[in-house]
Amino acid sequence: MLLKDQSATIDVNMWSVRFNKIRTKTRDICAPLSYEDHVVQPTQEVSPPKWHLGHTTWFFEEFILKAHFPDYRLFNKNFSFVFNSYYETVGERIDRVHRGNITRPGVEEVLQYRDYVDAHIQELLDISEKSESIENLLELGLQHEQQHQELLYYDLKYILGHNPLFPEYLPKEQQNNTTQIPALGFIDIPGGLYRIGFEGAGFSFDNELGRHQVYVHDFQIMDRLVTNGEYFQFIEDGGYTRFTHWLADGWDWVNAQEIKAPLYWKKIDGIWNAYHLKGGMRPLNPAAPVTHLSHYEAYAYARWAGNRLPTEQEWEIAHQVISPEISKHTNLLGRQALEPMPKTGDNIQLIGDVWEWTGSAYLPYPYYKAPEGALGEYNGKFMSNQMVLRGGSFVTPEDHIRPTYRNFFQPELRWAFTGFRLARHI
Amino acid sequence: MLLKDQSATIDVNMWSVRFNKIRTKTRDICAPLSYEDHVVQPTQEVSPPKWHLGHTTWFFEEFILKAHFPDYRLFNKNFSFVFNSYYETVGERIDRVHRGNITRPGVEEVLQYRDYVDAHIQELLDISEKSESIENLLELGLQHEQQHQELLYYDLKYILGHNPLFPEYLPKEQQNNTTQIPALGFIDIPGGLYRIGFEGAGFSFDNELGRHQVYVHDFQIMDRLVTNGEYFQFIEDGGYTRFTHWLADGWDWVNAQEIKAPLYWKKIDGIWNAYHLKGGMRPLNPAAPVTHLSHYEAYAYARWAGNRLPTEQEWEIAHQVISPEISKHTNLLGRQALEPMPKTGDNIQLIGDVWEWTGSAYLPYPYYKAPEGALGEYNGKFMSNQMVLRGGSFVTPEDHIRPTYRNFFQPELRWAFTGFRLARHI
Amino acid sequence: MLLKDQSATIDVNMWSVRFNKIRTKTRDICAPLSYEDHVVQPTQEVSPPKWHLGHTTWFFEEFILKAHFPDYRLFNKNFSFVFNSYYETVGERIDRVHRGNITRPGVEEVLQYRDYVDAHIQELLDISEKSESIENLLELGLQHEQQHQELLYYDLKYILGHNPLFPEYLPKEQQNNTTQIPALGFIDIPGGLYRIGFEGAGFSFDNELGRHQVYVHDFQIMDRLVTNGEYFQFIEDGGYTRFTHWLADGWDWVNAQEIKAPLYWKKIDGIWNAYHLKGGMRPLNPAAPVTHLSHYEAYAYARWAGNRLPTEQEWEIAHQVISPEISKHTNLLGRQALEPMPKTGDNIQLIGDVWEWTGSAYLPYPYYKAPEGALGEYNGKFMSNQMVLRGGSFVTPEDHIRPTYRNFFQPELRWAFTGFRLARHI
Amino acid sequence: MLLKDQSATIDVNMWSVRFNKIRTKTRDICAPLSYEDHVVQPTQEVSPPKWHLGHTTWFFEEFILKAHFPDYRLFNKNFSFVFNSYYETVGERIDRVHRGNITRPGVEEVLQYRDYVDAHIQELLDISEKSESIENLLELGLQHEQQHQELLYYDLKYILGHNPLFPEYLPKEQQNNTTQIPALGFIDIPGGLYRIGFEGAGFSFDNELGRHQVYVHDFQIMDRLVTNGEYFQFIEDGGYTRFTHWLADGWDWVNAQEIKAPLYWKKIDGIWNAYHLKGGMRPLNPAAPVTHLSHYEAYAYARWAGNRLPTEQEWEIAHQVISPEISKHTNLLGRQALEPMPKTGDNIQLIGDVWEWTGSAYLPYPYYKAPEGALGEYNGKFMSNQMVLRGGSFVTPEDHIRPTYRNFFQPELRWAFTGFRLARHI
Repeated sequence: MLLKDQSATIDVNMWSVRFNKIRTKTRDICAPLSYEDHVVQPTQEVSPPKWHLGHTTWFFEEFILKAHFPDYRLFNKNFSFVFNSYYETVGERIDRVHRGNITRPGVEEVLQYRDYVDAHIQELLDISEKSESIENLLELGLQHEQQHQELLYYDLKYILGHNPLFPEYLPKEQQNNTTQIPALGFIDIPGGLYRIGFEGAGFSFDNELGRHQVYVHDFQIMDRLVTNGEYFQFIEDGGYTRFTHWLADGWDWVNAQEIKAPLYWKKIDGIWNAYHLKGGMRPLNPAAPVTHLSHYEAYAYARWAGNRLPTEQEWEIAHQVISPEISKHTNLLGRQALEPMPKTGDNIQLIGDVWEWTGSAYLPYPYYKAPEGALGEYNGKFMSNQMVLRGGSFVTPEDHIRPTYRNFFQPELRWAFTGFRLARHI
Repeated sequence: MLLKDQSATIDVNMWSVRFNKIRTKTRDICAPLSYEDHVVQPTQEVSPPKWHLGHTTWFFEEFILKAHFPDYRLFNKNFSFVFNSYYETVGERIDRVHRGNITRPGVEEVLQYRDYVDAHIQELLDISEKSESIENLLELGLQHEQQHQELLYYDLKYILGHNPLFPEYLPKEQQNNTTQIPALGFIDIPGGLYRIGFEGAGFSFDNELGRHQVYVHDFQIMDRLVTNGEYFQFIEDGGYTRFTHWLADGWDWVNAQEIKAPLYWKKIDGIWNAYHLKGGMRPLNPAAPVTHLSHYEAYAYARWAGNRLPTEQEWEIAHQVISPEISKHTNLLGRQALEPMPKTGDNIQLIGDVWEWTGSAYLPYPYYKAPEGALGEYNGKFMSNQMVLRGGSFVTPEDHIRPTYRNFFQPELRWAFTGFRLARHI
Repeated sequence: MLLKDQSATIDVNMWSVRFNKIRTKTRDICAPLSYEDHVVQPTQEVSPPKWHLGHTTWFFEEFILKAHFPDYRLFNKNFSFVFNSYYETVGERIDRVHRGNITRPGVEEVLQYRDYVDAHIQELLDISEKSESIENLLELGLQHEQQHQELLYYDLKYILGHNPLFPEYLPKEQQNNTTQIPALGFIDIPGGLYRIGFEGAGFSFDNELGRHQVYVHDFQIMDRLVTNGEYFQFIEDGGYTRFTHWLADGWDWVNAQEIKAPLYWKKIDGIWNAYHLKGGMRPLNPAAPVTHLSHYEAYAYARWAGNRLPTEQEWEIAHQVISPEISKHTNLLGRQALEPMPKTGDNIQLIGDVWEWTGSAYLPYPYYKAPEGALGEYNGKFMSNQMVLRGGSFVTPEDHIRPTYRNFFQPELRWAFTGFRLARHI
Repeated sequence: MLLKDQSATIDVNMWSVRFNKIRTKTRDICAPLSYEDHVVQPTQEVSPPKWHLGHTTWFFEEFILKAHFPDYRLFNKNFSFVFNSYYETVGERIDRVHRGNITRPGVEEVLQYRDYVDAHIQELLDISEKSESIENLLELGLQHEQQHQELLYYDLKYILGHNPLFPEYLPKEQQNNTTQIPALGFIDIPGGLYRIGFEGAGFSFDNELGRHQVYVHDFQIMDRLVTNGEYFQFIEDGGYTRFTHWLADGWDWVNAQEIKAPLYWKKIDGIWNAYHLKGGMRPLNPAAPVTHLSHYEAYAYARWAGNRLPTEQEWEIAHQVISPEISKHTNLLGRQALEPMPKTGDNIQLIGDVWEWTGSAYLPYPYYKAPEGALGEYNGKFMSNQMVLRGGSFVTPEDHIRPTYRNFFQPELRWAFTGFRLARHI
């Protein structure tokens, strides 16, 4: 990551507070889980929660303590094999698909590992003079941990939501949500030359760096996300059974996987339900944004509706035009509820509900250059066969919600909190 | 199972004692495991220990309590879906390959399930007058539980032995074992008409029933099992790299799976070690019987050595001829050590060390007829593409060691405690 | 093969006549095919007809001309790579699954290869003094060629019968066949000690050698094969949808492959048709023996009918008991029609209609020993995971129809002319 | 296709001449092939030459004769099943992977089919007044046929080049080619707003339509293609064994497929050879452009060389800037030789050597809209998981070489004549 020199303004105490807050948050997310829930990997894209707890800790150990402090003694020399994710530079590691077979170290031992590494990092934080490179690595470690906090929500939802007993993660609170699908508008965005990408103080990932000019043509973009109720009409209209809406790869996927609805939807006694983190299996709210669908499904819906998905450039420009002042106004309601919530007012918001599929492939910006060494493997090597998502979700840490942030997944993946809005040329 | 009327002689108290002893034993096997160890399924033939705990309990609930006691209230109506193994008659069940993704019910809840069902069965045991069919089902449930006790050892060894940390199941005690490969002899067995198969009092499975005549030709059989040291010579002589020793299917398997040694063998710093339940990874003892190999490997070794595997008929006849008086003399040393142990004396023994691959496919005996209903699925439907093993292993419950017992596995499977001896015509 | 010294009685001229007759027959089988039909391999077990033409020729070149005549000059040194089947001893060869991609050498060049090799073999035949080993190899080469003649029929039927245009191999002649399902009887065979296996003059394969004693119990065996009409009742009774009839492996196969009827059956406008070599797609004759089914289907039918398949020992013994005088009385009607034909009289016949699945796994007879060298790969290495078939079919060369002949296939294969009869203990 | 009204200027005779010329060319390409060569499909992306002959004919029959002439009688009603490629709108069709199993209709019958359809189209061409829609369909049919002419070269090279005998397609003529790797330069292209995409008279595909503005930053692009000799250095430097150069998907592909060099390269006695259409297996010329590599390999080379691939926008703009006058100056030398030929002069040329991988994913241009009906499946539905190639190859029909043409393949495909040049920001 080419980190800006933002850390100079953060004093010793602030580092310590922030470090502890973020590290504690990870444990808190896992708190409602049983030991057993921490172990499994029911599908390839899911990692066991225990692995997240260990891997984020290994990241601090490997890239800070081991790399920069010769006297540091590893907690366990075998843990690098267990907790390395995909850094070829760092050496051998367990196959991703076997993560769910590793019962030792157990949850308790992993938590001890966290304590051990945290204590050593704390010593480092207590030193007032830290090199810029250490501060950059600390920052990256925290950003990395926050990315895994979000993945933890995806993964634990998958684990619990595919259990035949459908256990809830947390109980559902009383809520009086509207079920009225909100009115739909399209906003005009004038074409022209814009500048997109990250610049300035604060953290960003390497893939969003390089503020650069792009030209777009006039377009319109929806002022809200597509809802469950609207998506339901697509299903009712035979959306999953008519090839004309689909990309060829998407059609193959629908047929091979026998896809008939978004992930977690289940028709029970004739009524569409969905599994929710709070309250488990519950009836769908037609007014809430649709979520847990693949890029293929978003594309097919858009084509069925006579529109298309916005490009990532259009999305970022729309954000600049519409809501310069609300760029970080995230959806607090969804955060509490751990699910996308219906909009009741007329505030236009592009950010913080669910990750929005764009029509853009994940590719480097002009002048992009991956960093040297292991951290160069962070983003650049994934720039093929994936699609960009923008905006962030209600489980995205707030520091990760910024208009230039580029998330990316293979087009068939659905376990993230994904959704979409439509765009069109006029 | 066509159970003999053996149970009439067992009084109420004996049933109760035996039931509790066997049910307790299952828990005891799992006692050294962590919660996390109970959940996973690292390969298809392994089941999670938690699943064994639940499945053996479900067997009593489904076939006795639910089937025969209309007032019985299920502990949890969803458990049949989770804990049914392969009984199509009984209804839907989780795919075998997904057993390892099921984190709920957790270990504690499964133990409560055991308590609940045991308490109800106990009520039944306390009644002095039980129908014969109930007694037969109780007997079958206990035999079934004992089969799963053995599987538990296979499965937990696989789970721990494939963990990159190689944790031990139990610590190794001090032992002064010989490492001298014992002398090898072949015993002459005269050809002729013999009777094999089970008859008489006591329990047997349906597949061994039907005492019937068979004719065999004169043959010789080894007076002990093939050892690690002998098998090592086969490896050193290029055993895994020369097709001439192998069945065509075996050769394909060796190449596709890149097999180079028995399961759990690992060369460390030039020395062959193996993972053991007691003491984890330790040097191989050349004098101990080789174990954890496939039928294909046993066949290839036999051919390399200019001999063959005995048929299951020959094995059972050899047992009759050699050791009528020691038919239940099992290897106590191996039982304590949880591994096959070298023989030091000159006692000939065919039973209780490791399961011995035979050259016989698993097929029905004359007059075989599968029972009606779900229990008819117990044995008969597996009579294709599997090979018979005889003799029992040091983790086989003693009630399961009898000369007529027919075990069976696909020829490529290695996670059981398998081994072999050679035979030949003269 | 351990060939008997039968050849001494065959004079030079007889060798020549027989050689030419058999070699010509192979070409004749291919005569109705187009060049294009000779090339393809639509499924793994099928080989391209062009490959059979070349492989049978290579067999004579490799094992006789090249091995025994130092001056012999290979037709093309690359052909061994193309036309070796599975002889690891002989060296590298094209993967079996890629045989259908090899367009060169073309049909014409392969026929030239046949001419070239035949001319060299002819020189050898003209010599009056041939060593016994050469005569044995000649005999084996001709037997081998005849085996491939039968495979040619299976393969060309598969190629034409899976073409969407369903072209016929030969036109259908007028026939007035009965469609009346013949009466069904079971014949009693007394139990006792019998001798089975090949001995005496004439050719046999190594796997049938070793006349040996076996003991069987009293049994009954059907006096004819199961018919299309009877099998149709099994289908109508939900045979393919009820697991109780099936071996577990068979049930998995039925579901994975979505099997609903024997191979080549196709319901057209509500009527069951089948693809036939003569006349292409035509209505099924209910009176004719059912064919093109797997061992799993034969097993399931037998179980549905309350019976079982005979063992191969029972089959051979039944043949001895019933029809010592008609052991070579093959079904001439079927040979003309290239399909199994209904029986009209009351003659009991076990041989020459379709290959009959038995309930026996393919395993070595007592004292079996594979020959040394490449020819030792002929039979022995396939003795796992296959089932024995007995009797021969209407496309089996007559020399290959003998009561001791052991054919074998994997239990799921259906492209051969397979059928079955039932047996039972009383 | 949104075809422009270009056809008004083509009189009756010109249509006829052009139609016959293009249709004849397709046959000419197949002329050196044997019947057997026409049938097979050795890998999924290859289609049998016979299928191309039939499919291009079916296209005229289905979309012109059948659709617009009610009296037209189909040559064979089953051919639509056999020769439809991927038009879901048109109905059932044979699975793409089974094309290579279809031996009937044979080559001769397919050529009769061509004659039959050509005769009917000729009647249509003789009419002076054709509707615009018919003319558009004729144009599309011819363009479509020319696309398949190029595919024919890819496919027949694959069929012959994977035959173990490595037969040549045509003999090699005498040539005195330089083997001196030409000097390498980078050309500066100034950043700014440009217009790309097709407009004006003449044919184009729907995916290149919509002349539109794009903004690019200053960049440099190589003045020639990367050569065999340069690529050889990448291999020698461990290019295929060091992950740092590769996209993650590319690295997985290299390892899973054990890729060690471009397709058709083969080291013989220590010297790199490659299979060529003319002359078969011959030594590589280091001065000729490297070809038959995947996008992953082009990407890895670029990264190894410290550069990157150009985007498709950059490529088209570079073409506009450098060579407005030579936009159709294709490589005549390569056309004769049927292989990419070394450049000897200093002429800069971007077009007509080999298809050049770009760094752009294949995605719709602004305002893109797929046509209605079956022809709407021509391009749009493939816009996922593929990368754009630009420029055309020496086997691309000249009408298909234009600077706006967008070719596209999955990033792992190598059977086309692919190559690449590098670009960089300064």
